[in-house]
Amino acid sequence: MIEAIKHLPAQVSKADEPLYKREYQSPGAYPVPDLVPYAGPRKPIKNIILMIGDGMGPAQVTGGLLANHGRLFMQQAQATGFSITQNQYGKITDSAASATAMATGHKTYNAAIGVDSLGHKFRSIMWDAREHGKSTGIVVACELTDATPACFAVTHPNRNDQEAIAAKYLSAPIDFMYAGGLRYFTQRQDHADLLPQWRQKGYQVVTKPSDIATITGPKAVALLAENGPPAVAERTAAYINQGVDKALEVLSKNKNGFFLMIEGSQIDDAGHFNNATQNVQEVLDFDQQVGKAFRFAAANGETLVIVTADHETGGYSIVGGSSASGKIAANFATNKHSAVMVPVFAYGVGSELFTGMYENTEIYYRIKKALGWNTVENN
Amino acid sequence: MIEAIKHLPAQVSKADEPLYKREYQSPGAYPVPDLVPYAGPRKPIKNIILMIGDGMGPAQVTGGLLANHGRLFMQQAQATGFSITQNQYGKITDSAASATAMATGHKTYNAAIGVDSLGHKFRSIMWDAREHGKSTGIVVACELTDATPACFAVTHPNRNDQEAIAAKYLSAPIDFMYAGGLRYFTQRQDHADLLPQWRQKGYQVVTKPSDIATITGPKAVALLAENGPPAVAERTAAYINQGVDKALEVLSKNKNGFFLMIEGSQIDDAGHFNNATQNVQEVLDFDQQVGKAFRFAAANGETLVIVTADHETGGYSIVGGSSASGKIAANFATNKHSAVMVPVFAYGVGSELFTGMYENTEIYYRIKKALGWNTVENN
Repeated sequence: MIEAIKHLPAQVSKADEPLYKREYQSPGAYPVPDLVPYAGPRKPIKNIILMIGDGMGPAQVTGGLLANHGRLFMQQAQATGFSITQNQYGKITDSAASATAMATGHKTYNAAIGVDSLGHKFRSIMWDAREHGKSTGIVVACELTDATPACFAVTHPNRNDQEAIAAKYLSAPIDFMYAGGLRYFTQRQDHADLLPQWRQKGYQVVTKPSDIATITGPKAVALLAENGPPAVAERTAAYINQGVDKALEVLSKNKNGFFLMIEGSQIDDAGHFNNATQNVQEVLDFDQQVGKAFRFAAANGETLVIVTADHETGGYSIVGGSSASGKIAANFATNKHSAVMVPVFAYGVGSELFTGMYENTEIYYRIKKALGWNTVENN
Repeated sequence: MIEAIKHLPAQVSKADEPLYKREYQSPGAYPVPDLVPYAGPRKPIKNIILMIGDGMGPAQVTGGLLANHGRLFMQQAQATGFSITQNQYGKITDSAASATAMATGHKTYNAAIGVDSLGHKFRSIMWDAREHGKSTGIVVACELTDATPACFAVTHPNRNDQEAIAAKYLSAPIDFMYAGGLRYFTQRQDHADLLPQWRQKGYQVVTKPSDIATITGPKAVALLAENGPPAVAERTAAYINQGVDKALEVLSKNKNGFFLMIEGSQIDDAGHFNNATQNVQEVLDFDQQVGKAFRFAAANGETLVIVTADHETGGYSIVGGSSASGKIAANFATNKHSAVMVPVFAYGVGSELFTGMYENTEIYYRIKKALGWNTVENN
């Protein structure tokens, strides 16, 4: 209603003053060609690609959009929705509670990896995928033991017990893993080296980016950094980009299809650091992976891609700039998570199920519905 | 990825410190019963209800959701989308440029009422509605001459010329108007009193809330405040609530149907003032009007309701609280507009057209597509 406030009431914040303004200038846009959706006869869904932008709220997507001069792959989603991310107590979630919701259909407490406060353990949808003969994969830009991937692989009461989580990965229902966090497997307080145990179970183990090309599958684990991989500016194309390509190459060999979870892990870090430059760069890196997944689905007509987030980080707002210039000015309202509902972008067969505004547990239930899997309560 | 930042780098803002934290405690939730969507045979669309929450970004909706203990009418939308609101130059929009986009299908400069920088005048979709024999209406919680309603009624190069806009309303294609801003019609620099001119054109003119009940239509203008109506806390149920009821009563008498634009005008003001309490109250008032529109559509199966926003205001974030308590803590990142894409909630017949992520001009084009109206370029 108001065009401009001339006289600010005394209690009005001046949060758009320079202290909070962070600028980002795009060095140039990557091309976003129009994808041609699959138009053949409808096929059953064979493959699921679930992509989670950690900390990617609606404003983060908009920041990427403006920085890339008004074009994103996410924009080509065939259906969109809103995911309500609050945890079991209706409070602002962390990555663990939200990933548990998406992986198991259950709201829980912050820090929970696939369990609830009463000690119930919930089965990850990756187990269902395996039961249905599908291959499974995780590609992330953080430690393999970090909350988001862990919720799809194991159960544990506390996300911070990363060595315990690492040990549980040896019996996780995941065929292909691509992440950082090597030290939780090799430099442990119990002095165990878990890599030989992976190999005994038939996994090819790779720890150097130069060996990525040797991965053939069907079972492989690539742990490519001692801790978390570096931020996108230092991360080379050798890291997550090759991860998505390799995952699609290896997993699509299974004639029964696959379930692949990909995380744009460090959008969240950039939010916590109130780093507008990294924030945009991570969103744009993630969007380019989204482009690969959408293209894969467009080509084969038997893949459902869901792109969403676990929560927003940073209370991020774009307060200046333009899509014409690719320059944006951003403010942050917090260095923690915020409550805003997050976007859902769906592409491919079954995507129509993902429109609406719903709890994040619906990501789990709607994927199962799309696949025609039993959706009785998961417990 | 990061659970908590222990050591903040020097450049990190502390925007979640008390200066920016505003709290709101819900006095109690209003009930949001599950609506039963129309399930009869598909009918052609007869009625359009376009609802614009001025300044209502995704976080404002989330704030309302938590404050109302986790339930909103908007949540029952049958399809949802994202509207990209940047103006012709790719910059952060004002209400005028965004309402022009939705009313005419054209991006323009800020402050433009249905025109562009070259002086082209664009035809409001209300003219199309009239050509198709429909009744038309505007119900807003601001001056009738304010940017959002004006773009649906008239063309003018500058939103600030409110007396000139008022005079143009006399030949606008609107049958039913319900707003504030009486003084632009009666206390003018040209000393004209426009009310008799309304009456000569067959409009019933009402200026007192106590006379609202006397409105029978088909043509009526209710100007119920000298300036803008007061904020929701002081606005009585007599104001906008009766406006939506009366509009539906009067406009639905037309057997050819109607096009009604309803604005939740003061969500924007609350954003500019960084007033978290008013912000939530205005969102919840607007949501209750959304409930009426959804119910109307559910009952008759021949109405399409689109709920959206023109832009976000305030860089609003919820940084604490819960849906369990109905208490929220909010921070604001600016006292101006921000760039974040805004939600679209659609209900009723044709709602499926509104999923996806698209420019705000698509609101215009998709409504025309839903109605089967000619969608060649509007100029």
